[in-house]
Amino acid sequence: MKLPPPTILWEHGRLSVLDQRLLPHEVSYRELPTIADAVDAIRTLTVRGAPAIGIAAGYALAQAVSRARPEKRERVLTDASEALKASRPTAVNLAAAINRLLALDSTAPSDLIAEAVALHTEDRAMCAAIGRHGAHLVRRASHVLTHCNAGALAVSELGTATAPMYTAHGDGHRFHVWVDETRPLLQGARLTAWELSVAGIDVTLICDNMAASLMAAGRVDLVIVGTDRVARNGDTANKIGTLGLAVLARHFQVPFYVACPATTYDAATPDGRSIPIELRDEAEVRGDRAAAVRAFNPAFDVTPVSLITGFITNHGLLENPDEASLLRHFAN
Amino acid sequence: MKLPPPTILWEHGRLSVLDQRLLPHEVSYRELPTIADAVDAIRTLTVRGAPAIGIAAGYALAQAVSRARPEKRERVLTDASEALKASRPTAVNLAAAINRLLALDSTAPSDLIAEAVALHTEDRAMCAAIGRHGAHLVRRASHVLTHCNAGALAVSELGTATAPMYTAHGDGHRFHVWVDETRPLLQGARLTAWELSVAGIDVTLICDNMAASLMAAGRVDLVIVGTDRVARNGDTANKIGTLGLAVLARHFQVPFYVACPATTYDAATPDGRSIPIELRDEAEVRGDRAAAVRAFNPAFDVTPVSLITGFITNHGLLENPDEASLLRHFAN
Repeated sequence: MKLPPPTILWEHGRLSVLDQRLLPHEVSYRELPTIADAVDAIRTLTVRGAPAIGIAAGYALAQAVSRARPEKRERVLTDASEALKASRPTAVNLAAAINRLLALDSTAPSDLIAEAVALHTEDRAMCAAIGRHGAHLVRRASHVLTHCNAGALAVSELGTATAPMYTAHGDGHRFHVWVDETRPLLQGARLTAWELSVAGIDVTLICDNMAASLMAAGRVDLVIVGTDRVARNGDTANKIGTLGLAVLARHFQVPFYVACPATTYDAATPDGRSIPIELRDEAEVRGDRAAAVRAFNPAFDVTPVSLITGFITNHGLLENPDEASLLRHFAN
Repeated sequence: MKLPPPTILWEHGRLSVLDQRLLPHEVSYRELPTIADAVDAIRTLTVRGAPAIGIAAGYALAQAVSRARPEKRERVLTDASEALKASRPTAVNLAAAINRLLALDSTAPSDLIAEAVALHTEDRAMCAAIGRHGAHLVRRASHVLTHCNAGALAVSELGTATAPMYTAHGDGHRFHVWVDETRPLLQGARLTAWELSVAGIDVTLICDNMAASLMAAGRVDLVIVGTDRVARNGDTANKIGTLGLAVLARHFQVPFYVACPATTYDAATPDGRSIPIELRDEAEVRGDRAAAVRAFNPAFDVTPVSLITGFITNHGLLENPDEASLLRHFAN
């Protein structure tokens, strides 16, 4: 299976990350020799995507402790953990990754490195499982549509929404992917279109407002998106624009799937109304060409479970989800 | 009623147009003293919008003849007509405007100028009628959503989709308009947001993919869009993204209206499948940030009449349109 370049490299005890700010125009790795470098890389979105940030932070912490003199390791572990957790305080996976290393209750470099590698390996395995459980959906399709970047760049290796695509492509199935550009930050145009095309998958970029006419013309067989949080009842938060796609998919009878690790299910959130929606800077919408008017910039929207054909997770494929089947599926 | 600056000025026998390429950052008029200047202004989209182009061409022709010596007028009329018609050969209104002046069978400057002024006056009256027939819909709404620019800049004075908004605002009704930015060319962000806000209407710019979450939250009471062609059965072609809005409006039970002059109805086109869709340059979608992949760039989509609550035209308001009522309405 041909894949995009890895997001995170751990080679000979040295951590590097693919600089996502330079994509798609330049494929360049940035070495992160110190905690200050790692914090800066996370803050500046050099590395982005919640799982990828957690993996990078795990390696950064293990690397820092392994480079410290033995009598300093305890202090380095404490200080570095705090600095990394503060670099993007809302990223749940970041704190979870750091906490896993701290839970070892060890300052032995070999223990910490082994746990960081385990984190990375588990993430790859999770992506691979999503790929296996969703590949048959892609194998039945000629045209798949996706939104934003729930790809290898955000996670590791196969991504989440993209995992069934990479897996089906690796199995020899040839299909075509419509990639929504995903305004305002263009994650689809910059990242997803790039990573799928470098893996040899046939990609066409569209503006977000073009999906309806493609579906009306019978040119979309399947929609797969990622998610940031699945509520207890199955309502799903994802990048702004996902809800509109789900409504269109229902209207035009196109299957609409959400791919995610089982850890994205949040049984403590009863439904979509309880999911807080981040409002971002208006300037992202206005750019430098728009009139000087107020703009509205919600980063996410919530798709009700009634519009979701199924969930593709590392636990399997859950179709026609309801609260009972969701609890069983995600509790596995 | 406070209105945006006029698109076309005819003052003391001199033609000027608002340079739409410089909007929203600069409000600047360009005088068009010769036919070559007018042709260039049309070609470069200094003046755009099919009705506005027709009006400008009418004045340009009348101005050219009136400045010619009497023995040259016949020749100037012929040559200038041809040059203007060729400037944007697909713009039906352009040829129609020129043909109206030619049908006078006169080279008298006073005749030609009177006819050009009549064209402009009729267009203003048509916009005003659309405004009157749709204003009560806006008066019932707190939040209106529109797409692209079917505004004063594209037509004259009140525009088409915007006419009910300007009229209701002039009547003292205070409401708020969500303006879709309208990728890839951003006519909403650059033009509609500008013209509504300079007229004192409360405007918020959104990305095209945000409408669904606003409708889901009950924050859109009414959608009004323009159209480039209405087929005999009522299927309606308009800027790409319109179909998606219509599907969302139906799903979330928001009324969806199309505003247009009665001349937009084309009884010779049986239905939406017969409307050719212009495919534009892929580079407009890719811009300078996207990956180097293929892009798809249809300029229009077709909304089936079944998703249209009603048409607002200079003939009145037609709700629950079917083929018989459309023929009666537009034949008036």
